[in-house]
Amino acid sequence: MDAHIKPVELEKAYRLLNHGPTVLVSASHGGVRNVMSAAWSCALDFAPPKVTVVLDKATATRPLVEQSGFFALQVPNMAQLELTYNVGHASMTDMPDKLQKFGVELFQADGYDVPLVAGSSAWLICKVIPEPRNEQVYDLFIGEVVAAYADTRVFNNGHWEFEKADPRWRSLHYIAGGTFYAIGDEAVVKT
Amino acid sequence: MDAHIKPVELEKAYRLLNHGPTVLVSASHGGVRNVMSAAWSCALDFAPPKVTVVLDKATATRPLVEQSGFFALQVPNMAQLELTYNVGHASMTDMPDKLQKFGVELFQADGYDVPLVAGSSAWLICKVIPEPRNEQVYDLFIGEVVAAYADTRVFNNGHWEFEKADPRWRSLHYIAGGTFYAIGDEAVVKT
Repeated sequence: MDAHIKPVELEKAYRLLNHGPTVLVSASHGGVRNVMSAAWSCALDFAPPKVTVVLDKATATRPLVEQSGFFALQVPNMAQLELTYNVGHASMTDMPDKLQKFGVELFQADGYDVPLVAGSSAWLICKVIPEPRNEQVYDLFIGEVVAAYADTRVFNNGHWEFEKADPRWRSLHYIAGGTFYAIGDEAVVKT
Repeated sequence: MDAHIKPVELEKAYRLLNHGPTVLVSASHGGVRNVMSAAWSCALDFAPPKVTVVLDKATATRPLVEQSGFFALQVPNMAQLELTYNVGHASMTDMPDKLQKFGVELFQADGYDVPLVAGSSAWLICKVIPEPRNEQVYDLFIGEVVAAYADTRVFNNGHWEFEKADPRWRSLHYIAGGTFYAIGDEAVVKT
């Protein structure tokens, strides 16, 4: 694992998603690994940390999540803008070499089989909490975050440092039709 | 209703939330109206549009949502930075005049009882889709968007126009401890 990547305390893992970034969802099963992007992912609880993510029945990633019981969410950044768009708009079903074609490099964290996307800003490894009704009716999956990591060049000591980091580390917030917004300036309320 | 506020087509309502803003959640029942902020709200479906929002059992807004069956999500902006922080950190239970104290001005859209927060960038009026298990176990509420509106000074013809609008219209993305980020620059992938 890259020396810049450090574990994030589980009780602070919600902060990785709290600002609503578009995420990359990765999973593997039976030797097949895949990555898709998802704008519809959200924190659900602080401790133990939980998340939601919407996985359409047409995606090739969803069966890997269902069969393995694990997925990872990663927070991509401006340096991954095209990668994030591309893995969300081409399916492995139609393009079996999708990951290779789009330059997705994978790595693993000790103790977990789920593939992680290199070059991201943060990673949350999640164990599916089975909720069959949500999954079938709403395509909504709930996961408990069992491990979290961040690149210390942009998230350090429990805090995003977008304002100090190079702009390539800014998180991505997708709208539609290829249009994203990068996260912007910090605004602090005196408490 | 302010002349700048126009309806948003329901099939494009997801775009109001797709970039993951912190939202204001409003509801009313039996003459009581309340507003809270929530970072954990997310689009769930395109058509009919649906959303999720996490409403803790300790909030004073939750029983209003449960009793009326409706809530509104609004997308606040930099001009509402302190308001957004304040309504999320003081409960009507402890501060009955919370809305007055924090300068929250409410209005209504024709045909709906749910109160809307003036000065926001966008509004989604939602009808609760009852899912008792989600509500009890996860504090997770699902709503179908039945009407949506936006201020045309920042969302026009189905598109956010943050790059053209005054910076006070930028959406807010909460992290923790009074720290928000404003949404930043547009980044477009050629499709």
